[in-house]
Amino acid sequence: MSFKKFFCPDSIAVIGAARYKGKVGRTIFDNIIDSGYRGRVFPVNPKAGDIGGHRCYSSILDIDQNIQLAVIVIPAEYIPEALEECAEKGVEFIIIISSGFKETGVEGARREKGIIEKAKYCNIRILGPNCLGMMDTGCPVNATFSSNMPFRGRISFISQSGALLTSVLDWAGASKIGFSKVVSLGNKSDISENDLFEAWIDDENTDVITAYIEGITAGKDFIRAASRVSKEKPVIIIKSGNTDAGARAVSSHTGTLAGSNKAYDAAFKQTGIIRAKDIKELFNYSIAFSYQPLPRGRNIAVITNAGGPGIMATDECENRGIRLAGFTVETIDRLKGFLPAAANIYNPVDVLGDALSERYKKALETVMADKNVDAVLVLLTPQAMTEDLETAKAIAEVVEKNGNKVPVMTSFMGINEVRKGIDYLTKKKIPNFEIPEDAIETLSVMMDYYEWKLEKFQPVVEFDVDEEKVKKVFGRCIDAGRLELCELEARKILEAYRIPVPRAEVAEDIAEAKEEAERIGYPVVLKIVSPNILHKTDVGGIKIGVNDEKELEESFDQIMINVKRYMPEANISGVLVQEMVRDKKETIIGISEDPQFGHVIMFGLGGIYVEVLKDVAFRIVPINRKMAKEMVSEIKTIRLLEGTRGEEPSDIESIIDILLRTSQLVTDFPEIIEMDINPLFVKRKGKGSIAGDARIRIGG
Amino acid sequence: MSFKKFFCPDSIAVIGAARYKGKVGRTIFDNIIDSGYRGRVFPVNPKAGDIGGHRCYSSILDIDQNIQLAVIVIPAEYIPEALEECAEKGVEFIIIISSGFKETGVEGARREKGIIEKAKYCNIRILGPNCLGMMDTGCPVNATFSSNMPFRGRISFISQSGALLTSVLDWAGASKIGFSKVVSLGNKSDISENDLFEAWIDDENTDVITAYIEGITAGKDFIRAASRVSKEKPVIIIKSGNTDAGARAVSSHTGTLAGSNKAYDAAFKQTGIIRAKDIKELFNYSIAFSYQPLPRGRNIAVITNAGGPGIMATDECENRGIRLAGFTVETIDRLKGFLPAAANIYNPVDVLGDALSERYKKALETVMADKNVDAVLVLLTPQAMTEDLETAKAIAEVVEKNGNKVPVMTSFMGINEVRKGIDYLTKKKIPNFEIPEDAIETLSVMMDYYEWKLEKFQPVVEFDVDEEKVKKVFGRCIDAGRLELCELEARKILEAYRIPVPRAEVAEDIAEAKEEAERIGYPVVLKIVSPNILHKTDVGGIKIGVNDEKELEESFDQIMINVKRYMPEANISGVLVQEMVRDKKETIIGISEDPQFGHVIMFGLGGIYVEVLKDVAFRIVPINRKMAKEMVSEIKTIRLLEGTRGEEPSDIESIIDILLRTSQLVTDFPEIIEMDINPLFVKRKGKGSIAGDARIRIGG
Repeated sequence: MSFKKFFCPDSIAVIGAARYKGKVGRTIFDNIIDSGYRGRVFPVNPKAGDIGGHRCYSSILDIDQNIQLAVIVIPAEYIPEALEECAEKGVEFIIIISSGFKETGVEGARREKGIIEKAKYCNIRILGPNCLGMMDTGCPVNATFSSNMPFRGRISFISQSGALLTSVLDWAGASKIGFSKVVSLGNKSDISENDLFEAWIDDENTDVITAYIEGITAGKDFIRAASRVSKEKPVIIIKSGNTDAGARAVSSHTGTLAGSNKAYDAAFKQTGIIRAKDIKELFNYSIAFSYQPLPRGRNIAVITNAGGPGIMATDECENRGIRLAGFTVETIDRLKGFLPAAANIYNPVDVLGDALSERYKKALETVMADKNVDAVLVLLTPQAMTEDLETAKAIAEVVEKNGNKVPVMTSFMGINEVRKGIDYLTKKKIPNFEIPEDAIETLSVMMDYYEWKLEKFQPVVEFDVDEEKVKKVFGRCIDAGRLELCELEARKILEAYRIPVPRAEVAEDIAEAKEEAERIGYPVVLKIVSPNILHKTDVGGIKIGVNDEKELEESFDQIMINVKRYMPEANISGVLVQEMVRDKKETIIGISEDPQFGHVIMFGLGGIYVEVLKDVAFRIVPINRKMAKEMVSEIKTIRLLEGTRGEEPSDIESIIDILLRTSQLVTDFPEIIEMDINPLFVKRKGKGSIAGDARIRIGG
Repeated sequence: MSFKKFFCPDSIAVIGAARYKGKVGRTIFDNIIDSGYRGRVFPVNPKAGDIGGHRCYSSILDIDQNIQLAVIVIPAEYIPEALEECAEKGVEFIIIISSGFKETGVEGARREKGIIEKAKYCNIRILGPNCLGMMDTGCPVNATFSSNMPFRGRISFISQSGALLTSVLDWAGASKIGFSKVVSLGNKSDISENDLFEAWIDDENTDVITAYIEGITAGKDFIRAASRVSKEKPVIIIKSGNTDAGARAVSSHTGTLAGSNKAYDAAFKQTGIIRAKDIKELFNYSIAFSYQPLPRGRNIAVITNAGGPGIMATDECENRGIRLAGFTVETIDRLKGFLPAAANIYNPVDVLGDALSERYKKALETVMADKNVDAVLVLLTPQAMTEDLETAKAIAEVVEKNGNKVPVMTSFMGINEVRKGIDYLTKKKIPNFEIPEDAIETLSVMMDYYEWKLEKFQPVVEFDVDEEKVKKVFGRCIDAGRLELCELEARKILEAYRIPVPRAEVAEDIAEAKEEAERIGYPVVLKIVSPNILHKTDVGGIKIGVNDEKELEESFDQIMINVKRYMPEANISGVLVQEMVRDKKETIIGISEDPQFGHVIMFGLGGIYVEVLKDVAFRIVPINRKMAKEMVSEIKTIRLLEGTRGEEPSDIESIIDILLRTSQLVTDFPEIIEMDINPLFVKRKGKGSIAGDARIRIGG
């Protein structure tokens, strides 16, 4: 939907506008006026005649003009009535500044729910409650109670913490960073980051979307909105409340249920969201994305007037997978032509401590003309002869002449002695970083984003499967009052989705078992079959590596004896005679349910790799082939599957196939709340994979 | 040695003091005078009558007074002569500012070497050449060509990059951070960080030692000096040139050979050095260590006026292994007593957005009085009613009253709206951080350092070993013209140092082999013995798991056939019949030689853990028991040795013992340049470890 009437309405009513300066209701009214808002603004307050020279209305209904946006600043208990009047008036958007809702406990939450339901019914969208409001520098309008309206810029910011927003506005103002739109979500009862993502895809004043978020409530909507918007514009998010302790603080703070950090990481990764770990990163990234073009490759040139910072930049390049560009012969020749003999003409280019602006300028021109250079970082330390301002001017001139082909960043290292230079760079939209490491890190994020943007959208493939069979199995389980499937049932589910399982048949006695084993081929595995026994190993109900008839007889008897001893009451249907998969690696595919995002799919190598090293990859379901591929290549132990120490490679393609089928299964059957294929035996390349065992649990 | 006459000499001669303003020789002279230096300073320049009103001398020998420090600023080729005059004059310290030495190539390196040799002979210590000079704010004296003398403070700084030093001084000045001594090492031809560490152990004006270092030349001296000083004062170092690409940049920059990053990490870890990854971390750590007491535990209290930043701090606590203190009942009661009902009285304490300074003050007093609190972080976002300056004053007052018992840090988040508060905090030496995360990270570093300081010094134990035996084996190898020991020789070396090896005997024929196998007990391992065959597997010279006489006969024959086929010329001494170690885990102990630090010892689990996961720990030799223990517990796969999934724990004590013996071996015999005990079989707890095989290579 369009948020035009929200961000730049023709008319605004401030319900609860106050007579006295310093009161929130007055501050907001004044801020709207002071921001240069060109529409009409109406104070509503039954007790006041006029406010700041504007005629005051006792009800929004008294205003003889359409109202597109209402800002409400009255005590919580009067809001339902105000809402009804707004509905009658035909208002489409309301900002509720007032607190006294979900954040205060059960009673407040009930009140909030009532208001939101009524608003939905009346087709009114609500920002808040318990928020700071909204600013749009393009309109312009400042509908918040912070008088700190930012400069006009092309970054939009969403904050789930009002206090943090005030800090960010202060930083931005002092650092001369502009914003386009700023939104305080408050309790996020209706308008959420997802709505704003959608609204800002086409917003011509927004180039970069940033957000501070404590919890996401509508995970699936987030995935959908984020995937779409991030292909158009970079979206940079701080998600706090990541750790267990942090998550507790979140729930005591806003009542939002914080999802597991792993699920957030997966969701961000697969939707192309850029995750900033703190406010400083958020600023660094936003400025760079907003000011400079994307680098079209991972090769950078570094120009410096001192060795030390050049080394620091080089170190960080290696950490971040960025290459120092190899210059062409022409570049080298040109650099040789004007640099002193002691200078380093290779990358990093050391223009030496006595470099004036002219030398910097020529060096920058030269490396920017090199086709091997995808981005440039210019470092400057304030030495005796250094010209910080002149050098900044020279850089800006070259950048301008090059018409934004290649991103250029700087790190003028210092404060007082480089202040003029930095201020000039900021004015010319060349991002300057306190230290070279931050510039390199930011460039690496831009490079990743460029690659993400290039990737074509890949739909989720739908395999031909037998859904009816699954429905039947689930139906029978539920009828029998069971929510955890037994092994044979789980096998059927896998078969229905064409996930290979070992050959196996149930035998009722030794004679039958022998026949089956003969047919399957020794060695075989024997497993007790009983709806009462879920943990077969615990009762001695499994024998692995049964090599011949004699061993089969012994093992069969032994299993029966064990089971009768440990679970004399168990209802035994027989013994499963199963193919023994050899020449394989053990992996695991798992499904769990995340409160925010729904099904999460996991992949890793089995045994200690999962248990001790926790070397696993996650994605939110459904996944496409690209995501499945990334899951497999993301784990550190991938080299064990690729073949190491002369071993043959494993059949990674078949893992990807089974990941996709598992994703489809739980998408088709959301009632599955937990599932493990453990072990998933992976054979040699071209030989496929086989689900050794599976556990499936469905919701009650 | 004492550096008193270096940092605060009674008299200084500036050799090469220049008449004209702007020349380096003049700037240094002026800086010494302008810094308020209270000793006498003499310009030396044969071409000038007076400089800045001071009588100028044509030679240092003309000065009729003792000279304790000479600063030389003349062209490189005249320095040898000046040095001789200094020697004659009895000067003890010289700072050579001039460049034209190692940094320019072979010729310059030769010149530098000549000067240093002469200086050593004359008992003169040299700083530089090619450096910025030295400052001491306590003396005070500024013997550099930077006029940016810092405030007086208690942090001393060493820099191997002059340009970086100018940036640091600019940052420090603008941020009002004081320094005690500042030294630019330049080419570090004589005076190095090690000398300064030693000198500053007892320096009453230095509380915190910081350094930017590109390479360490005297690794063993560094280990010795760093271990000593870091027990007295925190030492914080940025080491750049860490990565392969970075290392290349270093060698083209200062000609210093950069050591491997792993070796540096190990050296820093075992000497208690705090490694900062960039300049920002260096500043954050130095300020905190210099301004606040060490936390005596890992429990912190957080006070905040907004939920968001509290969550960020909590997240970072979890990342850094810091606990949010559980308050005592009294604390909770007291907080309840004065905080509004909506406030959070548990940790983080949320004093709410309308908190004035008084509420902050009471909250801080209350949590500081709690015995469960080891450190406090106060967060402030600039909201409508927030009093930044008054709150800063309140915090400072409480801190002062508490007499530096518990460290207190702040994060006033913003710029303009919290500037007065931050400035006041800085004045009162309460470290303020831009974002909460940085404060928490810094606290965690202080907590680690506190633990390091508490640890008693542990000497390296000396086991009773048979050095003579090792000498004999090495002697025979060298006589035979071999530098790589054969298996039987390596066994002897291990035996001499009481490192257990499997029982084994050489058999010359099948009959003997049978006898040996009988004595050792089946199964056994058979290995070809030949001085010409180092890679036994490659020629089919090994059989593992030989179970009985029949298999032994077949295997023996097979080995002989294989060897004759692949290496018909090999001189065969027989077949080693070796005990087969069962019921074990495979680990590796390795020794390599680092150009800076000498022998480095490595430990890890064998096979893929080393090769794929690179899960290994390093230390510089010699190691003590504590370091050996840390090596074992440092690897991620330690849980596999501790026993997981119902397995019994392995004999970790025996690994530690063998690590110590290996360390002693290579310390006693520095000619060992490479050694691997691979595999080291580790048996169950109490059962010991056995070196399955060993490779030893000695230097030529």
